[in-house]
Amino acid sequence: MSINQWGLYTDFYELTMAQGYYRSGRKEDTSVFNYFFRENPFKGGFTVFAGLADFLDLLDKYTFSESDIDYLSKQGFHADFLNYLKTFQFSGTIQSVREGELVFPNEPVVQVEGNLIECQLIESMLLNILNFESLIATKAFRISQVTGGRKFSDFGLRRAQGFGALNASRASAIGGASSTSNVLAGKLFDIPLAGTQAHSWIQSFDDELEAFRAFVRTNPGNSTLLVDTYNTLQSGVPNAIRVAKEMEAAGLRLKAIRLDSGDLAFLSKKARKMLDSEGLEYVKIVASNQLNEYVIKSLLQDQNAEIDIFGIGTELITGKDNAALDGVYKLTENNGNPKMKFSENIEKITLPGKKQLLRCYDNKGWFSCDAILLENEDPGKVDNIYHPTYRERKKSIKNLQKEQLLHTAVKHGKAVIQMEKPADINRYLIKRAALLPEEHKRFISPHVYKVGISSELSEQRDALVKRLNH
Amino acid sequence: MSINQWGLYTDFYELTMAQGYYRSGRKEDTSVFNYFFRENPFKGGFTVFAGLADFLDLLDKYTFSESDIDYLSKQGFHADFLNYLKTFQFSGTIQSVREGELVFPNEPVVQVEGNLIECQLIESMLLNILNFESLIATKAFRISQVTGGRKFSDFGLRRAQGFGALNASRASAIGGASSTSNVLAGKLFDIPLAGTQAHSWIQSFDDELEAFRAFVRTNPGNSTLLVDTYNTLQSGVPNAIRVAKEMEAAGLRLKAIRLDSGDLAFLSKKARKMLDSEGLEYVKIVASNQLNEYVIKSLLQDQNAEIDIFGIGTELITGKDNAALDGVYKLTENNGNPKMKFSENIEKITLPGKKQLLRCYDNKGWFSCDAILLENEDPGKVDNIYHPTYRERKKSIKNLQKEQLLHTAVKHGKAVIQMEKPADINRYLIKRAALLPEEHKRFISPHVYKVGISSELSEQRDALVKRLNH
Repeated sequence: MSINQWGLYTDFYELTMAQGYYRSGRKEDTSVFNYFFRENPFKGGFTVFAGLADFLDLLDKYTFSESDIDYLSKQGFHADFLNYLKTFQFSGTIQSVREGELVFPNEPVVQVEGNLIECQLIESMLLNILNFESLIATKAFRISQVTGGRKFSDFGLRRAQGFGALNASRASAIGGASSTSNVLAGKLFDIPLAGTQAHSWIQSFDDELEAFRAFVRTNPGNSTLLVDTYNTLQSGVPNAIRVAKEMEAAGLRLKAIRLDSGDLAFLSKKARKMLDSEGLEYVKIVASNQLNEYVIKSLLQDQNAEIDIFGIGTELITGKDNAALDGVYKLTENNGNPKMKFSENIEKITLPGKKQLLRCYDNKGWFSCDAILLENEDPGKVDNIYHPTYRERKKSIKNLQKEQLLHTAVKHGKAVIQMEKPADINRYLIKRAALLPEEHKRFISPHVYKVGISSELSEQRDALVKRLNH
Repeated sequence: MSINQWGLYTDFYELTMAQGYYRSGRKEDTSVFNYFFRENPFKGGFTVFAGLADFLDLLDKYTFSESDIDYLSKQGFHADFLNYLKTFQFSGTIQSVREGELVFPNEPVVQVEGNLIECQLIESMLLNILNFESLIATKAFRISQVTGGRKFSDFGLRRAQGFGALNASRASAIGGASSTSNVLAGKLFDIPLAGTQAHSWIQSFDDELEAFRAFVRTNPGNSTLLVDTYNTLQSGVPNAIRVAKEMEAAGLRLKAIRLDSGDLAFLSKKARKMLDSEGLEYVKIVASNQLNEYVIKSLLQDQNAEIDIFGIGTELITGKDNAALDGVYKLTENNGNPKMKFSENIEKITLPGKKQLLRCYDNKGWFSCDAILLENEDPGKVDNIYHPTYRERKKSIKNLQKEQLLHTAVKHGKAVIQMEKPADINRYLIKRAALLPEEHKRFISPHVYKVGISSELSEQRDALVKRLNH
C-alpha cells in the first residue's frame, strides 16, 4: 500500500466510459454531477457529512503512472485515450457542504462540475470515501449523544475492514471520539492517542500484581490497569488498589482501571465502591467490550453504571448495523442541459440541473428545513418549497433566514479550502447539532427533517419526465 | 495513503507494552502467540482463511521512519526504546494455514513465535488484515455456493469501507468472485476486471439508442448494455436488441444486457424471451442491485430467474450482515512456559502452549474433524481428541488419516512461501470445500464441524487453571 498515484482507484466502467466519451469526440462536453444519499444510516434522523479532506487528498493524486498506463494498455484500452490519461489531472470545480455538517436524504451534498471524462472518472473514489466516512462520523456522533459528556475512544483497528481503519479512525474523531488507538491514524490526522494494556501483558508476568507494578513503573504517566484477566473483583481490582496506594506513596496517581468483559454495569458499580472506600475517588473506570450507542445508553441511563470513559471497537469502526451509506453520484447536467435518471419508482427519479442548497432557520434560530433550488434562482424570491415526491405538500420559507450550505472546495482543479483537524470539525458539528431540534436526533422513529425543492426545480423535472415519456 | 513504512499501523497499547517490556529488561523474552476466532461468520459452518499475503507484505514493511520516531517521541516514548525501534524488523517465525483453507472456531490458524516485543507489536496489524479478508473470502465463497456455476463479479468499490476496498476485492476473488470492478485491486492482485456502463452514460446522450450505439462502437469487445435507465422492457431491451442486430450485420456480437433495478426474476425472464425470440440466445443477462447469497438462491432456485452473471456490491464488499470476524491473538507461551487467559466463562479460556493443527479424514476421504495437539506430541500416538469445553465428549482419531495444516510462512523474519494469485487460491479452496461434508456447508443451522484437543493439551490447561486458582 505504497500508492502515490491513484488514477486506478476507480471502477473499470468509469475508464470504459471515459474512453467512450473520448473516442466519441465528447471530451470537451461539460457536465455537472451531484452526490447525494437516499436514506440516513442507523434508522436515524440525520447524517454527519465527512470524508471531504481525504477525498481531496486523493483527487490531487488522481493521476496515472507509467505502469498504470501499461496495465491499462494490456486491458485493451486504446493508445490515443491512454495518451490522454498520461497527463490527466482533474481540472473541474467542486462545491461541497462542510465536513461535520448535518445533511439529509436527497440533498446535493457535493456538486462536481467539469468535463464529462474527469467528472466520470472520479465517481468511484468520491463515493468510496464520502459514503464511508459519513457513515462512521454519523455512528460516532450517535455514540456521543448518549455518553453524557463522557469521553470515548476508537479502539477498532483490529476489527476494522482492512485499510478502511484509516478512514474510519478519522471519521470517528470527526463524529466525537476524543482519541484513537490507531497510531498511524493519530499521526496522519492529528488525533490524540489512547490505550491501556492487553491481557498478554498481564499473562506474561508470573502474577497480576507484578504485571501491574511493572506497567506503572514503565508507564507512570499512562497508568490504566486492565483488571479482568483472572478475576475482576477478587483479584484485578484489589491488586489495582494496592498498586494505586503504592503509587500514592511515591507521589503518583493511578489514572484508571479497565473492565473488558463480564457485566459492565454490575462490575463498574462494585469496582467504584471498592476504589472509593480506599479513598481512590480519582481513579477512573474505563469500559470496553462490544459497546454501541444502545448498550451505552442502557448502561448509563437504566443501570447507573459507574463508567467514566468508553473504548469502542467493532461497531464504531465498521458502522454496524449499517455496512454502508447508500450515497450515489448522478449526472444532472450535460453541456448545459439538465439531465436525470428516470425510474419507475418516482422516489428514485433524480433531480436535474445545477443546484444550490439552503438551510432555513425558524425565528428561534433552530434548523427548520432545507431547500434545494436551481443554481440561478434568487433565494429571496422563493416563497415555498415542495416535497420532492408529493407536490401537494408545501412549506413556506418566505420569512425564514437562509444559509448557503454548498461552498467551493476545488476551483479549476485546485483545492481552495483549508483542511481542519478532526477535533475542529467535531466542534463545528457540535455547534450545528445544537441547532437541530431534538425530535430529529432521537434514535427511535426520529421525526423526518423537511427537505424541499423549489417550484422551478420541480417544474424542470416534470418537463423532463414528460419529454422522456414522449 | 502513500505509506512505505507501516510501524505505526498498530494500537497505541502495543507500543506502550513494547516499551514496558523493553524497559523491564524483557526484550529477549521468547513468546508464542496464537491467532484464532470463536465463531464462524454469517451463522455459517466454516470460515475461509485469507489475508496472509497482504499481512506478510505489511510485515516486511513493519519498520519505523524517522518521522514516525519523531512522532512517537512527541507522544512521550523514551529515547532508549525509540532507538530500538529505529532498526526494528520482525525476526520471528510464523506458521499459518494456507490461504483458502477451511478453518473453524478455536483453531490456532496462525502461530507466531519470536521475542515478546516483536510478537506484541504486530498484533493489531495481523488482526486487522486476517479478520477482514477471512470475513470477505467466506462471504464470497457462500455466494459461489448458490450461483450454480454462474460467474459473479465484485462491484463493491463505491460501497466499500474506504481503503478496505483493496483488501476486500482481493478476498472476494479468493472466495470465488471471477472478476472485480476495482481497477487498482485488479492491477495489484492480478484479478480480471469487469464492468459495463453507468446510467450517466445513457443519460448523457439524447436518447438511449444513440447511447447504446456509441457504447458498442467504442467498446465492441466489452459490449454489455445497461437497459434500465428509462424503461427496461419498453425501451432498454428493445433498443439493445436493435443494436445487437446491427452488430450482427457488422459481424459482431452483443455480449450481454444488464438489469440493475426492479424485479430481477420477472424482468430477466421477460428479457430472455424477448432476446431469444430474436435469435439472440447468445446474449447474456447480467443482474445487479442489492444481491447477497440468499437473494441469489431465491432468484435461481425458487423463481427460475434467467440470469447468467451477477454483479455484487455492498454485501460482498462489507461482509454484511457480519461487520467483522471476531478473531483474537493470544499469548500462549512465554520463555517456554505455557500461558493462558483465564475467564469466568469457560468457553473463553484460551488454549496454552505451542501447538500443531491436524485435519483428520474419514475412510471415504471426507474431512472428519480437526485436532489441536501440543507441538511436541506425536500425532500417531494420539488416539482420542476431546471437546475443548466438555471433556466428556471425545472422538477417536486413531485410524484416521491426518494432515498438518500449519506451514511455516516466515522463518526468522523472512517469508518462505510463494504468494499465489487469488484465482489459484480459489482453486485450492474449491478442492478443499469439496471434501467438507454438505451438512457443514448449508446456510440454515449447519452441523458443527468437530474440533478437538488432545488429552495432553487438555491436561496442561487444567493444570494452569488449577494453579491460577491456587
